[in-house]
This record gives sequence, C-alpha cells and structure tokens, in this order.
Amino acid sequence: MADFDLPARNRRLLLVRRPTGVPGPRHFAMEDAPRPVAGPGQILVRNLYLSIDPAQRGWVADAASYVASVPLGSVMRSLGLGIVLNSNEARIAEGEFVYGWLGWQDYAAITFDQVLTSVAEPRLPLAAYASVLGISGMTAHLALEQLGRPKTGEAVLVSAAAGAVGSIVAQLARRMGCRVVGLAGSDEKAARCVARYGCDVAIDYHLRDLESALRVATPNGIDIFFDNTGGEILDLALRHMAPFGRIIQCGTVAVPVWSPPPIGPRNEREMLTRRLSWSGFLIFDHIARCEETVEFLVERVLTGELVYDVEIDNGLEQAPSALVKLYQGVTLGKKLIFVGRG
Amino acid sequence: MADFDLPARNRRLLLVRRPTGVPGPRHFAMEDAPRPVAGPGQILVRNLYLSIDPAQRGWVADAASYVASVPLGSVMRSLGLGIVLNSNEARIAEGEFVYGWLGWQDYAAITFDQVLTSVAEPRLPLAAYASVLGISGMTAHLALEQLGRPKTGEAVLVSAAAGAVGSIVAQLARRMGCRVVGLAGSDEKAARCVARYGCDVAIDYHLRDLESALRVATPNGIDIFFDNTGGEILDLALRHMAPFGRIIQCGTVAVPVWSPPPIGPRNEREMLTRRLSWSGFLIFDHIARCEETVEFLVERVLTGELVYDVEIDNGLEQAPSALVKLYQGVTLGKKLIFVGRG
Repeated sequence: MADFDLPARNRRLLLVRRPTGVPGPRHFAMEDAPRPVAGPGQILVRNLYLSIDPAQRGWVADAASYVASVPLGSVMRSLGLGIVLNSNEARIAEGEFVYGWLGWQDYAAITFDQVLTSVAEPRLPLAAYASVLGISGMTAHLALEQLGRPKTGEAVLVSAAAGAVGSIVAQLARRMGCRVVGLAGSDEKAARCVARYGCDVAIDYHLRDLESALRVATPNGIDIFFDNTGGEILDLALRHMAPFGRIIQCGTVAVPVWSPPPIGPRNEREMLTRRLSWSGFLIFDHIARCEETVEFLVERVLTGELVYDVEIDNGLEQAPSALVKLYQGVTLGKKLIFVGRG
Repeated sequence: MADFDLPARNRRLLLVRRPTGVPGPRHFAMEDAPRPVAGPGQILVRNLYLSIDPAQRGWVADAASYVASVPLGSVMRSLGLGIVLNSNEARIAEGEFVYGWLGWQDYAAITFDQVLTSVAEPRLPLAAYASVLGISGMTAHLALEQLGRPKTGEAVLVSAAAGAVGSIVAQLARRMGCRVVGLAGSDEKAARCVARYGCDVAIDYHLRDLESALRVATPNGIDIFFDNTGGEILDLALRHMAPFGRIIQCGTVAVPVWSPPPIGPRNEREMLTRRLSWSGFLIFDHIARCEETVEFLVERVLTGELVYDVEIDNGLEQAPSALVKLYQGVTLGKKLIFVGRG
C-alpha cells in the first residue's frame, strides 16, 4: 500500500516545556521530520483521529505517576486511531485500522504491544473507535462493572456526565436499572444528560446550593459515585454517600494543579462511619479485556441502546488547544483531533 | 441464682454533657438506682468487664453517624462481659457469660438482640472475651481478611500497632506470610510490637523523619495499610502505597475533633494514579460472623500463635478517665474496666 500519493513529511508535536498544571500550546513545538518507515516487527500507521484525554496532563507532569513522564523534546504521547500502511508484523495486516499509542504526529511506526485494538472491517464510523470504543467507553463499562457493581434501584451519581466517559456511564447505569443523577458544567449540558444520556436528573454543578439539589435528587444517599472530577464536587458527594457506597475515582479534572498539594476536608471519618469503598480506576490495567469490551459496546451502539458524541477539531496543530478546552469544560462528548493538513 | 448476696443497688454512669471531642469525666455523672429485674424476654446480667473503645467518642457526638447518639441523661453505651444472674430468655441460661451491650453500670437487664456472643464454658480467662475475643479481635480478623486480602510477601503497615486491634492485626498478618511494619506512639511500644506482636519492624511515629523510616521499612511501598489512627499518619502512608494497595479505615484516634471539619491533603489523585482501594470497616456489620470468629481466635490463642494484652482499671467510676487515657495513647493492649466496688 505504500506507493500512493502521501505526504513524505511527518509533522510531530514535541513537548518542549514542562507545565505545572494543564499543558497548552506554549508547551509544545511543531517539528518537521521525514515520514518514518516500518522497521522489523513494526507497522507504519497513518494517524487519523487522535484522542484528547484528561490523562495527558499527568503524562507531561514532572512527577511520574503510573507511567514515566513524556521526555522533553519527544513526541507528545497520545492514543489515536489510524490505518496501517505497511506491516512487518504478522498479526496486523495492511489496511487494518489500529487504535493505540500513535502520538501527536502524522505517522507512527509502532510495534504490536503499542496497539490496543485493531479492526479490519469497522462496524461503526471511525471516530467511534477513538471514543466510545476507545478508552473512554472501555473505562465507563469496566470501572462501573468492576468497582461500581450496580444493583437495580441504586442511586448512581456521575460527575462530568456530559463528557466522554460520564455520558457512557450514565447510559449503562440507567440500563442496569439504576437511578442516575448527572453533574455537568452548564444548564445546556445538564439538559443533554437527561434528554440524551439517560440521566433521571442532571444538575449544573455551578448551582449555588448544589448540596440541597443533590439531597433532593438522591434522598436516600448515593450508592455509587462515578467521579471524573474530584475537588469540591467529590467533597460534597462523599458526605452524601449511602452506607456501603462505592466511589470510583476515574479522573480529577476539577483540580487544576497538584503541586503544591491542594487541601480539602479530611475524609477518614466518613470512610469509616459510612463504610465506604473508594477506588481508583485506570483502564491501562485492563488491556487484556479491550477486545471483549469493544464487542460489548459495538453491539449496544448498533442496537441504539447507547449513543455517543464526538467533537472533532481539524488539524494536528489544534491538539494542544483542544486539551486546554477539555480542561475548561467546554467540550461536549469526546474530544478528538482529525489529523488533516488544512 | 438470684438469692445470693449481691449489692441491691445499681450504679449507673449517665451522659450528662455532650462533648465536642473526646469525652471525659465532666461529661458523666454517677447515679444510684435500684438493681433492675429481668423483664419478659430479658436477662439480668452482672457486669464484670466493660470494654473501653475509641468508637465511644462517636456514640456521644452530637451528629449521629452509624448509630443514634447516646441521649443525654441515659446510661453510657458500652460493650462488656458479664454473667447471667436471671434469664427469661430460652436461648441463654443462668450462669452463662455474655458479651454484649451492657452499658456503664453494675447490672444490665437486656434482650437477646443485645448479646453479641455467649459462652457457658469459657476456654480463656474472662477478660479475653472482652478483648481478643470481643470486637477488637473480631475487627482485626474480619477486616484484614475481607478488605486487606493479604498475600504472602506483601507489606502490611499497621497504625496503633500496640493497641487492642493493631496488635492482633500484626500477628495475623505475620502468620499469613506478610512483612509487617508497625507504627506506635513510643519507643517502648514499638519494641513490644517487634518482640511480642510479630512486627518485622516497628517505628515510633513521633520520629522526626517518619517518611524516611517508612521508605526504608517498605522499599516497595505498602500493600495493605490497616489504619486505626487517620490524620497525618494516613496522609503519609497513602502517599507511600504500592499500586493496587488497600487501605482499611478502622479508626481515627489521631484526629481529636471532627467539628469543624479538619483539613488535609487531597487524596483523589493518589487514589487514581496508584489504583488504591480505601474502605471503611465497622464490626457491627458483621455480627452474623461473631461466633465463628470467636472460635477462630480462641484456637489461635490456645495454640500460642496469638497473644493479647489487657490493661484493666478497677472500678466503674474509672470508665470516663479510661476513655481519656485511650485517646492519649498511653494504653498498652485492650483497655477494660473491672466493675468492682473499691
């Protein structure tokens, strides 16, 4: 497939400054490099959709967490969906679509272990493979199932409920017979959570008396809190959990900077007296279940049980500002970059 | 059995003032009342050992937590061991020993549902039934098993490791093949944790550089933190957990006052990036397993695998100050009151 008319240059967005909080355009620089070739055991991928993820803040932070920080001067780490142009890897054919560690660039020469899922015959539009069928949808399904363990009639609170993960969580929880309350960053988003994502109630978290609204929405307390935000929303929800409630920590987008360590109310007494269980979830621990999870989600989208939204910015050069917008809470659904040349 | 020479009066310690923090002598008053009689379905118990528990602070606090607050003017709520003098309850015979909700008084007329365990032929000295075989030992065993799920070779950190719960946790974890690190309030206590309670290492938490000591003691991080204290010890340990570590919140004795809410570092990022699981444990959710747990613990004490210590203050009137001492951290092992008349 290598002989058609493709750009011979590879634009690469390099991390050039290390941010203390959310990274933005000034932390990256565009570099022009030759198109890479697939080495032994590698595939050459033309990148199509890049996944803009809140986790990317952690990947460029000074302190390594669950993975090493992206080194200064190297291509920004990113998941994405692309098409295989050349393959020196027996398990992946040319022409297949792969979802994996492509990076902020036009082309990626990667190995099999950098591929999360691959598909020869897509059953949904390509952007789905980088959103509802990517880490956002997988996280929603696996974290809810493994850590939430929802039972019919339970009250589920979802923060960032109009977001890429939250919108899927809300729909899955509703399908499992739960009463779902969404928190979102505007009236418009809250309305969408009810109209489109299956929330029984949704609340704009900027509301002056969020506590009362939460009490009205979950009069018997919250059984499961699927938290994508952390911060004051977490402080409040934790104090409104039902006994034996489960908190799933999936993101911390509401806390802009982690160094120096921000403070909040102590939670150990609530944890004990309410017998709560609070767990962190990271999809990368569950890669073995990717294929099966994609199957589960594809079926539900095809039957119409599950809807998803993507918001696509055009052009690789938009990636840094897309990440800023994600943290500003102005995104609806999953934020993607289409890797075109404008 | 009712006709032998027993005092005809019942001394009762009433809660007369509601404390904001740890209750002490000024919050209680002694009342002299007639010895109660066992009504229909009741047993009359002569109280022998009263259990002094950190949880009693919560039971007298203004805000109800998992149980209603002790009403002002009523007998202080307490577990204890006593002997049955009269029984109008078919399931409990006169002469049996019962462990249950006796209260701070000489006699208790109670019903079957206020009894946690009963024993006709004690296999260990009576004080054991209010300590290692009471809620302290039960908590240690069940919380470690259910929430800790220790595996051979894992690192277990125990706070208040010389205390009634911690000393049992340390021994059980060691027997399960874990490396056990104890935190205690003095060098003397720390030495006891190693010499007597099976800790591989024990550290006085007053140490100036506790963080370094913890890092040396658990170079690969903490897999299980059995926390009886909360506060700054928790803040530190949480940041030294290994990935997938489990935190068991069993007590909060290091935080003297909960109103107004004390603050500490935010933990949501640590919970997420380390994929921790933090759970509250309350023994009263596990009453159905009391008898089986007592059997498990009795056997281990009889074989010499498990040792326990009690510190007994003489006289009902000592109960309030015993509770103060418990919170001052000057107790070794389980604090009990022997209900004698000096």
